Amino acid sequence: MKKKEEYIAMIEKALSEALPPPDERPAVLSEAVRYAVGSGGKRVRPLIALGAAEASGGTAEDAVHAAAAIEILHNYTLVHDDLPAMDNDEIRRGKPTVWKKFGEANAILAGDAMIPLAFKAAAASPHNAAGVVAALAEAGVGVVRGQVEDVGGVKDASFVYEHKTADLFVAAAAMGALAAGADGDCVEKLRTFALNLGLAFQFEDDLLDGDGLFGRDETERLAAETTAKALSALDSLPGDTTLLKELSVSLLSRKE
Amino acid sequence: MKKKEEYIAMIEKALSEALPPPDERPAVLSEAVRYAVGSGGKRVRPLIALGAAEASGGTAEDAVHAAAAIEILHNYTLVHDDLPAMDNDEIRRGKPTVWKKFGEANAILAGDAMIPLAFKAAAASPHNAAGVVAALAEAGVGVVRGQVEDVGGVKDASFVYEHKTADLFVAAAAMGALAAGADGDCVEKLRTFALNLGLAFQFEDDLLDGDGLFGRDETERLAAETTAKALSALDSLPGDTTLLKELSVSLLSRKE
Repeated sequence: MKKKEEYIAMIEKALSEALPPPDERPAVLSEAVRYAVGSGGKRVRPLIALGAAEASGGTAEDAVHAAAAIEILHNYTLVHDDLPAMDNDEIRRGKPTVWKKFGEANAILAGDAMIPLAFKAAAASPHNAAGVVAALAEAGVGVVRGQVEDVGGVKDASFVYEHKTADLFVAAAAMGALAAGADGDCVEKLRTFALNLGLAFQFEDDLLDGDGLFGRDETERLAAETTAKALSALDSLPGDTTLLKELSVSLLSRKE
Repeated sequence: MKKKEEYIAMIEKALSEALPPPDERPAVLSEAVRYAVGSGGKRVRPLIALGAAEASGGTAEDAVHAAAAIEILHNYTLVHDDLPAMDNDEIRRGKPTVWKKFGEANAILAGDAMIPLAFKAAAASPHNAAGVVAALAEAGVGVVRGQVEDVGGVKDASFVYEHKTADLFVAAAAMGALAAGADGDCVEKLRTFALNLGLAFQFEDDLLDGDGLFGRDETERLAAETTAKALSALDSLPGDTTLLKELSVSLLSRKE
């Protein structure tokens, strides 16, 4: 395992290379896309991709394009979720949301451009690029299914959690593993890890915010159960699981 | 060359298989996506993909996934272009637009789901799937660049035409050729064909609507010039160019 800052530096570099050059016309599009992806975030999903590559016996370098891809996809979902027709949010991460800063049409279009940019990055993966793309596509559809259910006011929290949160975690792990040339068994274990990590992350989030949709006791039980499942899925993998374990611990012991 | 109806039947089948099953949850998403892609359209872009595969010495079957992919991408652009924040159109092809029928949030989300569905189809191509995906990604970003310029009111018609119209034609040809295992020289010729066909199509469209942004004489000259360039790019290709030639003639002799 490298130092955390080295992984982050790899991710920021891959992201910057995957986005339109700042001077590409029309400038407002490049600007809005770069604003949306930002810098200095926690980059949880790309770190999962890099960790999955290492856990598969490959290198973090194998998964840099996959990592950039999943982060770009994640950030487009935030841009569109914030739109007036959706959650109508004006502030994200302490700054104006993309639509608030660049206008509604440009925010829709910036998100629309980010999706193919993510796929372009995924297609540059060194192993099994078509598989990496297919895993990203599955998540791309899944997050929308979760969001349609969410904005529709249907209160099946399990469905929304699985798709809005866990699908991106699962894709990050699968993409990182596939990009490192992992076999099917290894990819499957990493999917199980990421699904449970994503759900645990969501339950912990609920507990930080209040009692959660399932009540405090049940949410605590679910958080503990999914955390245990996530960690046990990391047993018997062919590579180094240090990054994924450290990431799990830091994600699940958040205080804010 | 097959009969036109056979190509269309191949395209409709591939499209139907690439879209979410009608009973997939949430039902409104499947319904909106299937409504957006419709059926019985001219399917110009997918026909270019099939024709490019044949012109490369491959079969139309090689390019069915690429064909479905480019048609799904094209139709998502229409869904988002029609939104209130963009062109605010309520009717398309004589029917209510997706946002008018399913609501604004669902229309944004249906478009958002269509993009990864297109990439999933592209990734299933039998040859050079990563190249097919990359060509689709280039068009996916290109059409947005054209649209940002268009909604921004910047009146550089060449830029808008090249990106909003021709980029999808170019991607259709490149994807069809790559999916059939074409080499770089062949792909390049088919890109030149499709770029000029797309521009000619746009100029003819202008002439049907009025005098065009460049004035009637200049538009007529440009239409003739790009048509000639498109057709001459089809010389010396390794495969059967009949479909592409027939398609060009029918596109460029439209009366409505």
